[in-house]
Parts: sequence; structure tokens; C-alpha cells
Amino acid sequence: MALTVVGSLAYDAVETPFGKRDRMLGGAATHFALAASFFDTVHVVGPVGDDFAEEDMQILATRGTNVDDVERVAGGKTFFWAGRYSANLNQRDTLDTQLNVFETFEPKLSDASKAAEVLFLANIVPDLQHEVREQCERATFVAMDSMNLWIDIARESLEKVIARVDCLILNDEELEQLTEAPNLVQAARRVLEMGPTVVVAKQGKYGAALFTADDMFWVPAFPLETVVDPTGAGDTFAGGFVGYVAAHRAEPLTEGMLRRAMAYGTALASFNVEEFGTERVARLTAGEIAPRVGNLQRITHFEDKPVELRG
Amino acid sequence: MALTVVGSLAYDAVETPFGKRDRMLGGAATHFALAASFFDTVHVVGPVGDDFAEEDMQILATRGTNVDDVERVAGGKTFFWAGRYSANLNQRDTLDTQLNVFETFEPKLSDASKAAEVLFLANIVPDLQHEVREQCERATFVAMDSMNLWIDIARESLEKVIARVDCLILNDEELEQLTEAPNLVQAARRVLEMGPTVVVAKQGKYGAALFTADDMFWVPAFPLETVVDPTGAGDTFAGGFVGYVAAHRAEPLTEGMLRRAMAYGTALASFNVEEFGTERVARLTAGEIAPRVGNLQRITHFEDKPVELRG
Repeated sequence: MALTVVGSLAYDAVETPFGKRDRMLGGAATHFALAASFFDTVHVVGPVGDDFAEEDMQILATRGTNVDDVERVAGGKTFFWAGRYSANLNQRDTLDTQLNVFETFEPKLSDASKAAEVLFLANIVPDLQHEVREQCERATFVAMDSMNLWIDIARESLEKVIARVDCLILNDEELEQLTEAPNLVQAARRVLEMGPTVVVAKQGKYGAALFTADDMFWVPAFPLETVVDPTGAGDTFAGGFVGYVAAHRAEPLTEGMLRRAMAYGTALASFNVEEFGTERVARLTAGEIAPRVGNLQRITHFEDKPVELRG
Repeated sequence: MALTVVGSLAYDAVETPFGKRDRMLGGAATHFALAASFFDTVHVVGPVGDDFAEEDMQILATRGTNVDDVERVAGGKTFFWAGRYSANLNQRDTLDTQLNVFETFEPKLSDASKAAEVLFLANIVPDLQHEVREQCERATFVAMDSMNLWIDIARESLEKVIARVDCLILNDEELEQLTEAPNLVQAARRVLEMGPTVVVAKQGKYGAALFTADDMFWVPAFPLETVVDPTGAGDTFAGGFVGYVAAHRAEPLTEGMLRRAMAYGTALASFNVEEFGTERVARLTAGEIAPRVGNLQRITHFEDKPVELRG
């Protein structure tokens, strides 16, 4: 079994209250792959320029990730993003976005990438997501991300892709914007009527929520004493979540399995934010993950007891 | 056993995307008492004006709440607040604040109020909170709320009260502001060094977190399809939380008990936001609460299973 991700590979310049990096490996597909590679063989599809360093390709290939479909565009430059975070990391300003090779990107999937049973469409132009989705005929679980920009300028295309995927992973406020619902529960219900059977709402530092036809699940972000750089946390979460599902593709997609996938996504994302960019997850080892999932369970569990109430 | 709350009784004018009320019963002590009264006999201490309606006093007295220490100031007007919420209820603008009788309020506690074993100091001037705290010598569990205003203009007085209470209940961003910590976990640790043994971080629509010396607990807000008016949700949560502790004061203050208190606070707060002001909680019945706590447990629970990870 294999897992294909289509999305951005990038260089990021990031400044947080705790330091800065002028040029570090980033991109949605990168963060996704580094997390998902703990669970399955990941095939990465995305473009880079001449400037993409061999050592960064090595990082992308961590834990056996297949980089054969990383397209090196001759004469092109890698996607570049620069941003600065506020004091409490709650807000970030984009200082620069250079699409570069991403501007003319047309995903070309090898047979190996097309054959994946699980597919993740990271945040790119909805029409490209749709094209890729149609190419992966064998995929039995397709998840996707998107962003407010596409809701604003390409809603029709976006809704077309959403109708063709099993799982939409989006920020809570984007879900509300997409559905024009006044709250997250209503927003999720409306997405479940659009096609997906699973909706995941990312809530940033507050955690994430899972919605299916019959159930809901809420998990907090893993509490940390040290948060250095939130860049890529959402894609790392998605990598852990979708990776977990991919590793258990032989089983039915039960609520219990999806909840565990949420927990592993949460654990992976928590490592990501402890250092800049990919630094922490690139050298993360398998043995470090399960204890954090165990702690997540401990800090969310309570035992109810009957209580005598008045009135 | 009894529970005393000192704080505001108010009239609120509130506009949300779902309707408006020009003048409804509100105030921190009101919302707190309506929730806490499910668990214990509540004594309310706070001032009102000549304009405070007898029917509102009846609502305050719901489930046996003692209103003997509600001080009716002759010639005075009740505290008035007007606010408008944004489309997704995430933000609110204060349109008007009239302190009225609250400007010269000096809490006068009867012997019955002073004798309470559990005390809640709702958000008022820190010096008054301190005065009340010193008057309640028999109190074995004292909790308090506050707000950013007092951190800005009365930090020293505020820190003096915090040092004298067992539990600080504050918004997450106010905790960070108070301690100048870069994140909530560090903020809570610093408060635990200031005196309190329990810190509760309110996170609005995202839920709440509990911190003690040895442990943490995170609970989401109860997910609702209908959210009409968030006014008073924080105080209703505090009423459920502190009320639960008061009802179990014969037991040691274990982490398990505090977690259940968090769950009951969360359940109570969720009823509060379903309708305007006190409307829903005033007619809430005991039998409606436990099922919601049970649901809260179901939507936060996951079973971990060993998983084989790569790398």
C-alpha cells in the first residue's frame, strides 16, 4: 500500500519571537510527507526549481519517502514564502510570496503515484486537485486541504473537488466561510452533505475536531512549554492523520480508528512546532510518538460519577 | 455547607446575529449563581438600584439562592452593559458601560455569607476582592475571576488577591498577559507559583483547561448546533465548576474531582449560550445536565492501540 501527496515544496523565511530562519525547507507536501512517512511509503508529487538543494531532497526522502515525482523545473526557482509571527504566535503576517515554479505547475503522476490507495491533495489550485483526484482511480481514501483564497476566487472548482473526496481537512473558520454556517457544527454538517464522509476542523493551537454522519470527536492541541514555530503544523497534523488511516487501510474506517488518527496527527503536529520548519520532525524517532499519544489521552480523560443535583 | 459569590448584578443590552434584547438580567454573580445553585445553596453579594425588578430578584433566587445580601441602593441605578457580537460570535464590541451603583460598591457580608466554606470572587476591583476574601475566614476553597483591565491598571492589587486564593479562573490570553508568558502552559505554571493550587484557563468557544502542580486537563466546549448569545458563558462555567467543588467539599480536592467539575462547568455553559442571557439556565432542570456531561465524555474519548511505526 502507498500514500501519494500532491502539493507544495518550498523555502520559507520565518521570524517568530524565538528566532528566525532566512531560508528553510518548507511546503505543505514536505511537512505532510515527513509526518506520514512514519506510517506508510509516501510518494511526493510537486515542483522545485534549480535552487532546490540536494540535502533538502534527502530530508524529504526521510523514512523512505519516494521523491521520483518531485519535478525539477530547469531554469525555475522553488516556491518561496516569508512570514512573521506575533508575540503569542496567534497571528502571522505574510511578508512575501513568490509562486515561482508553482505558477505553471501541472502535476505529472507516475504509475506508482497513481496507484496509491490513499491520496492527500494539499492546498493547491482546486482544478489541479481535481485533475489529480481523477488520475488516482484506485484511491479508496482521498483527503484534501484548501484555503480561504480558493473559497473567495474559485468556489465552484473547489466545491467540485470537495464532492469527489472522502475527507475535507480545513481550518474551522474556513469551514464556516465555505458553508456560510454560523458555527462549526453546522458547517461540518453541511460539508457532509457535499460529498465527504469525514470532516476535520483544524483549530490551530486549540486542537482539532472530527465529524462524521453519526459522531463527533474533539481533541486539544498537545500542550507544550516550548512552541517555537507553528509553520507547517496543519500539514504535519494532516500527515499524521492521513498516514494513520493509510496504515490501517485494511480495516474498516471506524470512528475508533479515525479518533486514533486524530490523536497521532495531534502528536506529530506538536513535535513540528517545537523547532523551526522541518527540524524536529525530520529527526523524530518512532519511539517518541506513542508516549505523546498516551499523554494526550491522559489529559483529556475524565470519569463521570453520579451527582445529586438540586432543582 | 454554602457557597458565597460576590460580583455584579446587571442589566445587559445584547445584539447578536440571532436577535437582540434591550434590557435583560445579567451580571457575573447572576450567571454564576444560576449555575452553582444546582449544587449548593448560593449566597449572592452585590448591589442593585431602585430599577432592579422584583421578577429578576425571583430569577436570581432560583433553586434556593439566598439574596439577603443583595444590596438595594436607594436612588441608585443597576449596573448596565450594552454589547454587540460579530457574525460568528468570535468578537464583541462594548457599546455602553454604566457602572452606576457599582461605582461606590462596598461589599457587606452577613454572617451567613461570611461563613461559607467556598467563595467565588467574580470580576470586580481587586482591592474589593481582597477585602471579601479576608472577611471569609472559614472558606477552604476560594476561586476568583478577573479581567485584562485590572492587569493593566491594578496589577499589584490583583497579584495580592491571587496570592490569597486557591483557584484562578481566567481567559487564556489574560493568563498570558498576567504572567507575560509566551504560551498557556508556561502562564499556568507561573500562576501556580503565585499562590493558587488550581488554575483554570477559559478558552471561549474552544473550551477550557485545568492546571495543577502535577497535572493538566483539557475539555472542549460542548458542541452545539445553536449558539445564540455567549454573554455570561464564562461565569456560568465558573458557577458549574465551583459549584461542583462546593458540593464535594467533604472529599479531598483530587484531580478526578476537579476534572468532573470542569465537565459540569462546560455542560452548564453550553446551556447558557443556547438562548439570551439567563433565559435557558433559569428554566434548566437537573435531569438535563448529566446527559450532556455524558456526551462530553463520549466526544473526547479515544482508545489507543499499539501501532507499528517506521523509522
